[in-house]
Amino acid sequence: MAKNSRIIATKGKEHFPPQEYFVRDISKDFSIKYGKIKKKDLKKKNSRIKTNTGKDYLIFESQFVDDYKRIRRGAQIIPLKDIGMIIATTGIDKSSVILEAGGGSGGFSCFVSKYVKKIISYDIDDESLEVIRHNIKSLEIKNIAVKKADVYKKIDEKNFDMILFDLPEPWKAIENASKALKVGGFLVSYSPTIVQSQQFVNTLTDSLMHVKTVEMTERMWKIEGQVVRPISKSILHSGFITFARKISK
Amino acid sequence: MAKNSRIIATKGKEHFPPQEYFVRDISKDFSIKYGKIKKKDLKKKNSRIKTNTGKDYLIFESQFVDDYKRIRRGAQIIPLKDIGMIIATTGIDKSSVILEAGGGSGGFSCFVSKYVKKIISYDIDDESLEVIRHNIKSLEIKNIAVKKADVYKKIDEKNFDMILFDLPEPWKAIENASKALKVGGFLVSYSPTIVQSQQFVNTLTDSLMHVKTVEMTERMWKIEGQVVRPISKSILHSGFITFARKISK
Amino acid sequence: MAKNSRIIATKGKEHFPPQEYFVRDISKDFSIKYGKIKKKDLKKKNSRIKTNTGKDYLIFESQFVDDYKRIRRGAQIIPLKDIGMIIATTGIDKSSVILEAGGGSGGFSCFVSKYVKKIISYDIDDESLEVIRHNIKSLEIKNIAVKKADVYKKIDEKNFDMILFDLPEPWKAIENASKALKVGGFLVSYSPTIVQSQQFVNTLTDSLMHVKTVEMTERMWKIEGQVVRPISKSILHSGFITFARKISK
Amino acid sequence: MAKNSRIIATKGKEHFPPQEYFVRDISKDFSIKYGKIKKKDLKKKNSRIKTNTGKDYLIFESQFVDDYKRIRRGAQIIPLKDIGMIIATTGIDKSSVILEAGGGSGGFSCFVSKYVKKIISYDIDDESLEVIRHNIKSLEIKNIAVKKADVYKKIDEKNFDMILFDLPEPWKAIENASKALKVGGFLVSYSPTIVQSQQFVNTLTDSLMHVKTVEMTERMWKIEGQVVRPISKSILHSGFITFARKISK
Repeated sequence: MAKNSRIIATKGKEHFPPQEYFVRDISKDFSIKYGKIKKKDLKKKNSRIKTNTGKDYLIFESQFVDDYKRIRRGAQIIPLKDIGMIIATTGIDKSSVILEAGGGSGGFSCFVSKYVKKIISYDIDDESLEVIRHNIKSLEIKNIAVKKADVYKKIDEKNFDMILFDLPEPWKAIENASKALKVGGFLVSYSPTIVQSQQFVNTLTDSLMHVKTVEMTERMWKIEGQVVRPISKSILHSGFITFARKISK
Repeated sequence: MAKNSRIIATKGKEHFPPQEYFVRDISKDFSIKYGKIKKKDLKKKNSRIKTNTGKDYLIFESQFVDDYKRIRRGAQIIPLKDIGMIIATTGIDKSSVILEAGGGSGGFSCFVSKYVKKIISYDIDDESLEVIRHNIKSLEIKNIAVKKADVYKKIDEKNFDMILFDLPEPWKAIENASKALKVGGFLVSYSPTIVQSQQFVNTLTDSLMHVKTVEMTERMWKIEGQVVRPISKSILHSGFITFARKISK
Repeated sequence: MAKNSRIIATKGKEHFPPQEYFVRDISKDFSIKYGKIKKKDLKKKNSRIKTNTGKDYLIFESQFVDDYKRIRRGAQIIPLKDIGMIIATTGIDKSSVILEAGGGSGGFSCFVSKYVKKIISYDIDDESLEVIRHNIKSLEIKNIAVKKADVYKKIDEKNFDMILFDLPEPWKAIENASKALKVGGFLVSYSPTIVQSQQFVNTLTDSLMHVKTVEMTERMWKIEGQVVRPISKSILHSGFITFARKISK
Repeated sequence: MAKNSRIIATKGKEHFPPQEYFVRDISKDFSIKYGKIKKKDLKKKNSRIKTNTGKDYLIFESQFVDDYKRIRRGAQIIPLKDIGMIIATTGIDKSSVILEAGGGSGGFSCFVSKYVKKIISYDIDDESLEVIRHNIKSLEIKNIAVKKADVYKKIDEKNFDMILFDLPEPWKAIENASKALKVGGFLVSYSPTIVQSQQFVNTLTDSLMHVKTVEMTERMWKIEGQVVRPISKSILHSGFITFARKISK
């Protein structure tokens, strides 16, 4: 994807937060707030370009993080701050095989596909499955296998290094996950409400150790000369993340 | 390392937060609060074991995340919540070559070594360099090159996908970083005080776009039956993270 | 004011957050989203009433807190969460005489007028002075004296129990405040940016002890059956509050 | 109390957080870390004094806020940040008659006694009742009536402007509170766990409107020259505060 998509950004420190345009299709002219950019300019990779009204912009090839931010969202997706926390806490890496169940748009799977060996993605909803497949294709991902399957009923595979639940009733799949994980592996459950986390934690079996349940807050600061203050209004909640770990067969 | 280190954990839901022992050396008996574990038991990989006083524990091979948590800390290290955020925001991956300057204990480099292709780690302090080398060796990391070099003076290499500053005066190395980064690459600066972030952001050159400055809070919850509440006392601050991006040559 | 203003509220648990209408003028009919309420109904004090379309509402006399929330705002006013913190930290009470300087809309003075003996309110801006006077009149407050005066130049009065600064450059008035306070009294400075707090604290004279600088966050939860979660988007920042205390003549 | 208690403080900006000693009994010498202060010096009201080792201190009469911070605590007390929020949200004032039920140490009642007309304080536990009475006496408070009574069973009085619950099962007393409140009055429930708040809110009757449920965070900053950063470790949770309002008879 990156070959053909571009980021058009404002120059230097002129704007904050920075103004960015994402160009998916460089085979035709692109309109922005202050004019039009010609398709021949869009093909440039790292350059200064001008709109037809003479306004200066910079253009560079988009990268995976840029493309990822524009994936299709059928449902609420897990924000990057939480994805980062899950990677850092579980330590999943290029040798890891993981399962995501109920991801909705497959956002988590798409992002971590770069970091792990293989992902199996379960969903039972046809619409969600379609969104996931669309995102995998548009991001040119090769190591996610999408399955229409119900994680509450069973998990066919074994020996996962990590399993992520983004489910309305995650406690219903604890037994299945426990069998499908390696010893030392992590079961992570992501829930918008604390009552779901409560029921999940209270249902954990003896072979799953409750490591921690956390919520992550990202607070953004405005910094401009002497004006240094947190942004007034911001996202204060996305989800609670529970980490459990399989400690025995 | 994982081959020879073990985690000994309490069974099931008995304790929260879970009691964990890390065994570095399995060639001799290991003492814990409630008795001793024989070395022949320590060699087991995924088992239930008993102390000499008859108390039950579980044992499993430690993984990278377990080993990482026990590295040597010469200076304050960047916590995992912030490392996760940096990975997720910059999207560094197995094709990335990155520079860390001033990391003190090399914690960031050690952790992300699993996710990137190559890391160059600059420090000028001999004691820090020794701690970094010790940690690299004990975690058996192969892709970090440690250099005694002063990032305020120059950066020898070019074309980094990401540069991380964990420096007292990060603004002094902006020019050097700007030249050493790829277009589209990220310059990340980590500072305990907001005044450092302010000076860093206000010194950014035109070719570096200020993406955002954030602080991440991890709040842990206690969940035990009907007792569902945030942990009363917790870490409320570690550092401010500024993300800048190179948008032109 | 309360005699003639009313709150019209939705019945019971039907809506969250609750739908509330504030009626300033009960001498004419009042229109709401679902119809009209007749002026004879508006005169009722604690009753169930119906709109002309048959929809049920409750009506009750507004109280000071209700009226206060509808004051005129020329500038950003200090939110109630911060006003509460200032009252609770300084302990100002019905025997206290206090000074507010630069309050913009006089919000703080209006609210605490109920709790203290006397307030003097300084401002140099004619527009602000008009807003303050308007608010004092509409809330029928008797113990605030408004003065056009420049606190950077001098403070005429002595022996204040508390002085509140809501000023762009609060450090310029520290000397004056120090002279005008009682020993044991508090100087409180409210600033949107941390750089202002920094300069204020670093300028404090020997006779003023820096008690603390804090920021207060109010996080609201949604609770509806099993849906229990923080509100996603919310105010994350209003101002930093510095408390200093006069400890010697 | 203030007549006979003193605060001894370090001079100026030497220490942060400031070092403070509270002297309850000025009829005998007082020992501090750096020496002893003679009783004749303790009687001074606003002065510089010296220890026998020649170290300088300042002394001033303690005020209500100082005395309040030293009350006896039989149970966890509601922190000042939350007391401030309750005052500011309900607008209770010198005309208000309020009820506190289950306060443990009576901290809330003692503090707001300065702001309201009359408080009735219910508790069923003899030990708690003793602590409350001790605190009322030592703070010389005249407008709190302590009663051994069970709020789950009944509330004898009527027409309260505000009722505060600090109870393990606050939902059991909702009906009683509803009858005992004025229309427009507030029922406030303070709970350490969110499950208590959930059950409380879900049990609210039709005549009680759920205004909001919040948690307040106070984050303290260190400011010393260029070192400007939040304090690393801090209290991250005390309690959830639910505000409900009586909207009909």
